Amino acid sequence: MADPEWTLTYEGFDPEQEALREALCTLGNGYFATRGASAESGANEVHYPGTYLAGGYNRLKTNIAGRMVENEDLVNMPNWLPLTFRPDDGDWFNLLQVDILHYTQELHTNKGLLCRHVRFRDKQGRETTVKTTRFVHMARKHLAGQVTEIQAENWSGIIHVRSSLDGTIINSGVARYQQLNNKHLEPLEEGILNNEGIWLLVQTNQSRLQVAQAARTRFFLEGNPFHPERHTAKEPGMVSEEFTFAINEKQPVSVEKIVTFFTMRDRGICEPRLEALEQLDKAGNYNDLLPSHLMTWDHLWGRCDIELENNESFTQMVLRLHIFHLLQTVSLNSIDLDIGVPARGWHGEAYRGHIFWDELFILPFLNLNIPELVRSLLLYRFQRLYRARLNAQDSGLKGALFPWQSGSNGREETQELHLNPKSGRWLPDNTHLQRHVNAAIAYNIWQYFETTYDLGFMSYYGAEIILEIARCLASLATYNPDIDRYEILNVMGPDEYHDAYPGSDKPGLNNNTYTNVMVVWVLNTALKILSMFDQKRQHEIREIIALRDEEIQQWRDIASRMKIVFHKDDIPTQFEGYEDLEEFDWEGYRKKYGNISRLDRILESEGDTPNRYKASKQADVLMLFHLFSAEELKEIFHSMGYEFDTETIPRTIEYYQERTSNGSTLSNVVHSWVLSRSDRPRSWQSFMDALMSDVKDIQGGTTHEGIHLGAMAGTVDLIQRCYSGIEFRDNVIWLNPSLPDEISRLKMKVQYRAQWFYLELKHSCVTISCTDCPGGSSRIGYNGKVYEMQPGNRISFEL
Amino acid sequence: MADPEWTLTYEGFDPEQEALREALCTLGNGYFATRGASAESGANEVHYPGTYLAGGYNRLKTNIAGRMVENEDLVNMPNWLPLTFRPDDGDWFNLLQVDILHYTQELHTNKGLLCRHVRFRDKQGRETTVKTTRFVHMARKHLAGQVTEIQAENWSGIIHVRSSLDGTIINSGVARYQQLNNKHLEPLEEGILNNEGIWLLVQTNQSRLQVAQAARTRFFLEGNPFHPERHTAKEPGMVSEEFTFAINEKQPVSVEKIVTFFTMRDRGICEPRLEALEQLDKAGNYNDLLPSHLMTWDHLWGRCDIELENNESFTQMVLRLHIFHLLQTVSLNSIDLDIGVPARGWHGEAYRGHIFWDELFILPFLNLNIPELVRSLLLYRFQRLYRARLNAQDSGLKGALFPWQSGSNGREETQELHLNPKSGRWLPDNTHLQRHVNAAIAYNIWQYFETTYDLGFMSYYGAEIILEIARCLASLATYNPDIDRYEILNVMGPDEYHDAYPGSDKPGLNNNTYTNVMVVWVLNTALKILSMFDQKRQHEIREIIALRDEEIQQWRDIASRMKIVFHKDDIPTQFEGYEDLEEFDWEGYRKKYGNISRLDRILESEGDTPNRYKASKQADVLMLFHLFSAEELKEIFHSMGYEFDTETIPRTIEYYQERTSNGSTLSNVVHSWVLSRSDRPRSWQSFMDALMSDVKDIQGGTTHEGIHLGAMAGTVDLIQRCYSGIEFRDNVIWLNPSLPDEISRLKMKVQYRAQWFYLELKHSCVTISCTDCPGGSSRIGYNGKVYEMQPGNRISFEL
Repeated sequence: MADPEWTLTYEGFDPEQEALREALCTLGNGYFATRGASAESGANEVHYPGTYLAGGYNRLKTNIAGRMVENEDLVNMPNWLPLTFRPDDGDWFNLLQVDILHYTQELHTNKGLLCRHVRFRDKQGRETTVKTTRFVHMARKHLAGQVTEIQAENWSGIIHVRSSLDGTIINSGVARYQQLNNKHLEPLEEGILNNEGIWLLVQTNQSRLQVAQAARTRFFLEGNPFHPERHTAKEPGMVSEEFTFAINEKQPVSVEKIVTFFTMRDRGICEPRLEALEQLDKAGNYNDLLPSHLMTWDHLWGRCDIELENNESFTQMVLRLHIFHLLQTVSLNSIDLDIGVPARGWHGEAYRGHIFWDELFILPFLNLNIPELVRSLLLYRFQRLYRARLNAQDSGLKGALFPWQSGSNGREETQELHLNPKSGRWLPDNTHLQRHVNAAIAYNIWQYFETTYDLGFMSYYGAEIILEIARCLASLATYNPDIDRYEILNVMGPDEYHDAYPGSDKPGLNNNTYTNVMVVWVLNTALKILSMFDQKRQHEIREIIALRDEEIQQWRDIASRMKIVFHKDDIPTQFEGYEDLEEFDWEGYRKKYGNISRLDRILESEGDTPNRYKASKQADVLMLFHLFSAEELKEIFHSMGYEFDTETIPRTIEYYQERTSNGSTLSNVVHSWVLSRSDRPRSWQSFMDALMSDVKDIQGGTTHEGIHLGAMAGTVDLIQRCYSGIEFRDNVIWLNPSLPDEISRLKMKVQYRAQWFYLELKHSCVTISCTDCPGGSSRIGYNGKVYEMQPGNRISFEL
Repeated sequence: MADPEWTLTYEGFDPEQEALREALCTLGNGYFATRGASAESGANEVHYPGTYLAGGYNRLKTNIAGRMVENEDLVNMPNWLPLTFRPDDGDWFNLLQVDILHYTQELHTNKGLLCRHVRFRDKQGRETTVKTTRFVHMARKHLAGQVTEIQAENWSGIIHVRSSLDGTIINSGVARYQQLNNKHLEPLEEGILNNEGIWLLVQTNQSRLQVAQAARTRFFLEGNPFHPERHTAKEPGMVSEEFTFAINEKQPVSVEKIVTFFTMRDRGICEPRLEALEQLDKAGNYNDLLPSHLMTWDHLWGRCDIELENNESFTQMVLRLHIFHLLQTVSLNSIDLDIGVPARGWHGEAYRGHIFWDELFILPFLNLNIPELVRSLLLYRFQRLYRARLNAQDSGLKGALFPWQSGSNGREETQELHLNPKSGRWLPDNTHLQRHVNAAIAYNIWQYFETTYDLGFMSYYGAEIILEIARCLASLATYNPDIDRYEILNVMGPDEYHDAYPGSDKPGLNNNTYTNVMVVWVLNTALKILSMFDQKRQHEIREIIALRDEEIQQWRDIASRMKIVFHKDDIPTQFEGYEDLEEFDWEGYRKKYGNISRLDRILESEGDTPNRYKASKQADVLMLFHLFSAEELKEIFHSMGYEFDTETIPRTIEYYQERTSNGSTLSNVVHSWVLSRSDRPRSWQSFMDALMSDVKDIQGGTTHEGIHLGAMAGTVDLIQRCYSGIEFRDNVIWLNPSLPDEISRLKMKVQYRAQWFYLELKHSCVTISCTDCPGGSSRIGYNGKVYEMQPGNRISFEL
């Protein structure tokens, strides 16, 4: 029986829902990912083709001048899943052309297994049951396996089973990208092994990286192997084995397919084809491979699970589904692959696998559970520091400017035009002006350091990135002598509805509060980090980036005199001039259009623009309350010479919440966070909206283009850090829980500075304990007091 | 003026010495290495072709069945150095065909620069001065540069300069490998850029990794650029630019060549050719690139230099030359390249780039100066754990068996035959029986952990490697019920003169003391490491490798009852039966042959074998005194139930020293170490022998096949840890210096658990101080007492 707290279950086949289910049921191991539900259903196979490759294969274009042409972003890797069958005189199995008598699909998040159970009747009246289970191996990242049990329910006869490797696949998961190049693989060679097995060698178009797959298909009757007659076939990019044998009524036949997968960029290999063949040869059968896969998931959950007592098991399950997708996208298998975290996972083609700022929402959870992985994800940025420096130069700035969107070599990949599917028009795209992605990278590095105290990382890599970002952001600021303050002009904040002043040809906005505050935070943090090192290392780091005293003095000056614009009622503005925009007719448009989360597309199709209105796609100013505590914000504003009355916080939240369409799934996460102390019911509502982003496809059609990893991680982070009120400051773990009424109990683990802590939270009390690992004592803060805790001990606080 | 403490200087040209000088003057940056002296001298160019690539390109064979055939071990990368010239009516410059009036060659180890100054007269009586300086950039690893100043001393006229990229190179640095396949590159494409520059794309034969180079050549007269007439030429694997211009008497012309170098396995790139061209485009001129190269060397020396006061500046210089070669072979640029440390550096073709046990001698220095790098070098082993497990299975053992020699994918690469150049015979090679390489890997991991306390590394990687090695070594032991002890049969110790019992067909020896003691140490250490983790992680790690209680019990049993054989006078034997071998006629053979360090070859050519004699190539039992203190050994022996009287140590040293030919350069390092307390003059003599291994080519002809990196590092380690008597135990830095008379003062830095310590040692006192980096206090031990030291403080002890 599937456990409803762990298993995503679909009963009944629904072709309309197939694409959505597939996105949600994709399997992966941080190295490669396999699309889920549709593998055997011929109908979808062309459109949602099997296996995708992680590992930084969000490739760039061949044509480096013309963007959006000849793109090799997220490359669909050869599909290893095709396995189908037909009775001797029947059609190849196709769910759309049979009567489905029973259909269940289950994704077991605790086991990393996807199961499907189908019973159907074909045109000839034959009834057949097919049960499939598959994994992408979590411990042995080059392996995947599938077992298919076929049972003839009311017939006997000859059956043909075909098992293939298919490299002729294309990128076609996003309708509006159909005009773009979608074929990214070139077939090189196909091979058939003597006794059993097939292999396929392809290479990516532009980076010319070779990728090899090898597959073996075996047959079992009541657990005993048998060897059906085999025919083989190959054509460019495709190789198949076809097996023919007699099947008897009520005698289920098991078909096992094991596949190995290697690329040229793998570590510790000779060359991909050789390794794929040799590893296949040693792989053993499905049941030999399964235990270590299950054990690895067990260990992962042992450190990452969050137990949540709530009257709906669905809430707990979706939370786990989110953790599951996080761990499938980036895992211990991702370490050293030189990858970032793509916004839509490895299997989502939307945004073409590009890297944005989503790590800001994803890394906090990983910091506290798999910090080794975070280190590797941050090194991805370090490896692209050279390009970020060039990018700054090209933009007339100093230091390093990480682009809003980037791919393999880290250069700017933001589109210059985008399509409004509603109007059919291609429009100029100014989102590259979202310079705040740089502040997010600096923030991520600091958070990683704060939880791990990894001085080596900071000294060799982290400091250099942050200092170069600080330098870039400082060069973005301009001094305004009239007010004796610094300003940041012509940028975009997180809210993508506003990219220019109404009627202006010039893109960008002035003094976006989020950006300005983040710049000040980055400058202060950069200087704090520098001062952590001894004199000699400080000198070296400064020498490496040629950072002079005058520049540091200028940073101090900017940080203390950055301009922040407030509305008349002291609410910090989204950007200078926002207060003068027109109010938007939310009610009217909701009535007219229903879902108005993509208001930008609606307005543009009407010849209007959101630039005219006080209407935001997503949290912008409110991001500040997500990233910083009221005390921290007070301090930052104070350092700039502004009073910051915490009394304005609820008003600010109210003000912007009313003017936001939540056109980004991240927005609900932020709103839930900022309301968690002041308005728990509304916070919970936003949390639930964010939680349902993908599982209910709340944007109506974006999930099948790929899950929203930032929102998934954000909901987990809400539980882990926000509702638990856990904070790490000055080597003290502070607890200040604020459980929503809907959660009666919360249990989780966090790792802080190499020690593991167990937390149990109820409305009445919070308990923290520490593993018995030899190490120093820990400092736990509650209600203004700090307590020492020895390894293996436990402390409870009554709330 | 060259500083004699930093600069290796050669005055006068000597064709006989060219190959040796070239090996010693090779430049590198841990990513790629460039052969040194001969680039412009046509004579050697074919034999010592330019650029080599680091990065795990010590590739395996295409033909996986037949070893020693179709080998892609250490692949010579395309040569970027070719730059030559001729007067309009003269020959291309060739040192062997002109009168050399002046010749100086200088390798500046402090700057990472190689300079040559030649003045010559050609057949037509023209006198010309050529000054060349080159670097392989230490900060920007994809870049190298060279500036050549040509001055016509007594003539004016038209001159032609040719600058090429040459991918037609072969591996021909080792005479006895000439019969093996030596062509490892396939040319793919050559290109000529419109205004200036050329590029070359090649791929490795078997791994099919593409490698791109791009080069640009510029001309300057009195600092002003000028643009000579250009002709270009290309053929498969070779592309050239030829420039023609007028040169005037006494007006020096500068020719700058800048090159970029990328491979498919680089991080943060799109594809190699694109990156090579774009980085070249942005590179700037020689003088733009030089400062950051010099700064990086300055920083490296700031952490790695050892200042030694000795009356011979040559000693100091050679010590620095050794540090220099270490840092050129593995550096911060090597991190994440998935490379091990090849025994002969990246430029030495001997041993075909294979990885042996040399890290045992190399990592101690790096642990204390660049621990980040050590972590990456140890991960190289982790990436090959899968293959080590297969290797154990193939050998009928459990756990993981790292092979004696390995390459890209970590499988066994030890040759099955080797050539005795003296007899011309190919002989069976049993060196794969040196199982002790596994103990060395475990020892390296423990040492890294001891100096860094990197628990994350240990938990995710280190513990698994050590436990699997422990399991393998335990399965190597067999229980002998007659003596109620465990034995290890049919192995080889470090001494390669003995691979079987005299007259036996069966390879291997029994109860090699070094191996048996190391196995006990590994088993004890594995259990100690396991106990460092909390119960949950212990359970997980044990589950990952399926380690049961009974197996742990068996390890304890083996560790407490391992058999050690002693001679009648209590000296631990090299292996069981060694005592019964014949004494060797050292004097007779020395008289007859002079250098008898390769006694094995001499004896085999006489139809005899060293297996018959008490004669060792290198330290075997004595390795134990190198790796462990007397107290540690006493404890290990005691745990096995043996008395170990430290009184036997000097006798043991004496016994084996007399019976060792030092046919391995590592042997002098070990002998120097073990004598350092008991016989300082002899220790110093062995130290000096080890120090001169390469710079004086003491083996007579092996250095030009590649420097001996283990011996180089070993001499540095002798100064850093042995003579300084610095030891790290239980979080205390113990000092117990024993300076040889020849050193009057020693200054160095070491990093221990993320803090830097400065040491100054004299015969009269030792001073230690700690950087001002915020952090906990440190514990310094001297003469049995432990002292607390605060950051920024200093303590002196009178000796």
